[in-house]
Amino acid sequence: MAIREKVFSTIVNCFKRHGAETIDTPVFELKETLTGKYGEDSKLIYDLKDQGGELLSLRYDLTVPFARYLAMNKITNIKRYHIAKVYRRDNPAMTRGRYREFYQCDFDIAGQYDPMIPDAECLKIVHEILSELDLGDFRIKVNDRRILDGMFAVCGVPDDKFRTICSTVDKLDKMSWEDVRCEMVKEKGLSEEAADQIGEYVSMQGGQDLAERLLQDPKMSQSKQAVAGLTDMKQLFSFLQLFQVTDKVVFDLSLARGLDYYTGVIYEAILTQTGPIPPPAAAEQNGAGGDEGSVSVGSVAGGGRYDGLVGMFDPKGRKVPCVGVSIGIERVFSILEQKAEASAEKVRTTESQVMVVSAQKNLLEERLKLTAELWNAGIKAEVMYKKNPKLLSQLQHCEDSGIPLVAILGEQELKDGVVKLRTVASRDEVDVPRAELVEEIKKRTSLV
Amino acid sequence: MAIREKVFSTIVNCFKRHGAETIDTPVFELKETLTGKYGEDSKLIYDLKDQGGELLSLRYDLTVPFARYLAMNKITNIKRYHIAKVYRRDNPAMTRGRYREFYQCDFDIAGQYDPMIPDAECLKIVHEILSELDLGDFRIKVNDRRILDGMFAVCGVPDDKFRTICSTVDKLDKMSWEDVRCEMVKEKGLSEEAADQIGEYVSMQGGQDLAERLLQDPKMSQSKQAVAGLTDMKQLFSFLQLFQVTDKVVFDLSLARGLDYYTGVIYEAILTQTGPIPPPAAAEQNGAGGDEGSVSVGSVAGGGRYDGLVGMFDPKGRKVPCVGVSIGIERVFSILEQKAEASAEKVRTTESQVMVVSAQKNLLEERLKLTAELWNAGIKAEVMYKKNPKLLSQLQHCEDSGIPLVAILGEQELKDGVVKLRTVASRDEVDVPRAELVEEIKKRTSLV
Repeated sequence: MAIREKVFSTIVNCFKRHGAETIDTPVFELKETLTGKYGEDSKLIYDLKDQGGELLSLRYDLTVPFARYLAMNKITNIKRYHIAKVYRRDNPAMTRGRYREFYQCDFDIAGQYDPMIPDAECLKIVHEILSELDLGDFRIKVNDRRILDGMFAVCGVPDDKFRTICSTVDKLDKMSWEDVRCEMVKEKGLSEEAADQIGEYVSMQGGQDLAERLLQDPKMSQSKQAVAGLTDMKQLFSFLQLFQVTDKVVFDLSLARGLDYYTGVIYEAILTQTGPIPPPAAAEQNGAGGDEGSVSVGSVAGGGRYDGLVGMFDPKGRKVPCVGVSIGIERVFSILEQKAEASAEKVRTTESQVMVVSAQKNLLEERLKLTAELWNAGIKAEVMYKKNPKLLSQLQHCEDSGIPLVAILGEQELKDGVVKLRTVASRDEVDVPRAELVEEIKKRTSLV
Repeated sequence: MAIREKVFSTIVNCFKRHGAETIDTPVFELKETLTGKYGEDSKLIYDLKDQGGELLSLRYDLTVPFARYLAMNKITNIKRYHIAKVYRRDNPAMTRGRYREFYQCDFDIAGQYDPMIPDAECLKIVHEILSELDLGDFRIKVNDRRILDGMFAVCGVPDDKFRTICSTVDKLDKMSWEDVRCEMVKEKGLSEEAADQIGEYVSMQGGQDLAERLLQDPKMSQSKQAVAGLTDMKQLFSFLQLFQVTDKVVFDLSLARGLDYYTGVIYEAILTQTGPIPPPAAAEQNGAGGDEGSVSVGSVAGGGRYDGLVGMFDPKGRKVPCVGVSIGIERVFSILEQKAEASAEKVRTTESQVMVVSAQKNLLEERLKLTAELWNAGIKAEVMYKKNPKLLSQLQHCEDSGIPLVAILGEQELKDGVVKLRTVASRDEVDVPRAELVEEIKKRTSLV
């Protein structure tokens, strides 16, 4: 929990820096709200027992409840974050980081704005968070649903095969091109020619230059959709340059996130360092707001633009354009927990700054009095709940729980109006006048 | 949510100041874990649909899951807090502050310690939190389950009527003594003489002096249980004096909290000021960790010692003594939200410090660049997602959302290497060299 709290605060600070507020939606949704939003995965939704009243289910992700909330409350623009648990009827595999209850961490910008500005901010946020969390090097792949669809069209994929071919492309982060090609041709009945044309495009990676090149591409430029996507991609990169994050962002035509509701830009952040990275299950489950099928090994964030989802919940179908990002926070926990374990660094579970102790008997009351003085001054202080604890066991508690300072009271100190302040690490001791104790503790613990 | 976040941080800071860590237990428990812990209220437990696998229910409070967690993990001492939602199949009455999903906020100390030290710390914590939240004047009533039982015994209540008479006494905060007496005698068949003797005791209120007086009381001193409780009560008050909180704490023999699992000291904090206090429902539901029947009007915190609960979950029945307090946080939210509404004070939903604006066209890129500079320096900054927004609409957004500063960019400012910094409230504007902007914003917003 201590590691988790630190991750939460890093992420929340970033969201707040970007002017986001938080809203809270209930853990229940009407069963019908969730129906038909998750395709095959709907079987993983937890339903409540029918005990009378509405039929309810537990939320499966945070995006659908957010869209439902916007439509219900007729909100047309908001920048919000939500960190909360979601529930899936899955076989838990704790060792693989797969749970039935886990956190999702979403940031979304809803509203009608000029192209790609909020989209660029989402990528800036991913960049800030992954840098601050210090998870190692990373890359953020971006693509656009319209570029994918345009590419399929110009490569001769029949309309009714877009989705299924897209989901095969999505496997490129786990399978070789040969295997992907084979699946397209043998299993999905695509022509070899079309497959090979797709193969050429999906091997392309670049930045603004690639978007420009593809806009000149004789085939791609035939598709209105692709042109719209590529024009926005160019614009996106120009904003990303202003935000100074292009070092980590790559336009990658093989990125094809699974969820049907994306309508424009899509992105996914992956860690590029090898190291003690948790197995894929955690990433699949948590990387991308419910997007199990399409998250690559090493994925720690993902998202995209979904301009149609809110309209599904509005009686009149009014659309609210949205773009968002989901941080794979459970994955981040796993990585940082493994790091902490590997470094054998002790993770503190409390923040206590000082322990009030005594070497002598019958000083419980004096200890309690001093402790209360410290509490009242805002110092995080502990005291042992024993009448006459041994000095050694009090010091041992400090060692065990990482409390950096010890305030020692004895008859002599009481007589002299001082407290002996001991630094646990160095064992240095110094007498501090009681009136100056609070300041001294603050000074010393602010350096830690 | 903004008010809620402030309440959360005040409370969490207090818990951390007292050396507590947080643990998280799942929202599900096995159905059987919850069975038989809540008496009649068990009908309010939400069960999950049987979709295969274990039979699960949603947690009804945080205390039973905590006890189950201690027993399962063989933890014999811990100081923990937990703020999380619990679920009850109730008819929601939003206007009365009664929900099916609501927060509980618990702090508990588990472990074998010398008498009344952790108990006193719990009361100190209630005192600190209620003072800091600035809810108005309050009182904390304390009593002891053993004093109540001893009192019933010496007043001639038959053993098998202790619980039912206790629950009648518990109504004294809502009913007159006459009505309570009537219920005891008419409905519950208690003798008039016993009822009158109870009436004498339950009218008593005091402090350490009252505990001392009752220890000398010819009747009370006949009960071993009462003597044990009164001795501890004396001790408790001596610690409370050291903590300087006796001004708000009153030993009140009429306090009788409902939950069966209490074994020693019990307490409840009430607001004593009249004012826009939410109706009793919120208090009943949230005041005391599940203790619906027994929370008085105005109750904002409650708790007590429960030394037997953990043992119910341990296969060998090993006991872990516990004492805890539950802050009625939903009630606190209601009160502070009503206060905020009444004062017509605008509650900010974001923490943004500055908005980067321009009065001229074609400066989107410059605005984004400056905004990114501010984000990178840790400043909470917003920018409008429009190419050429009107100055007025940008300033209006600051007014609406309470952003205190505006950083204005124009051709002239860019040429001069400055930014015009405007204070929204006073409309003062001053040119700040771009290199000094971050410091200037930090300086100005730290004063707010």
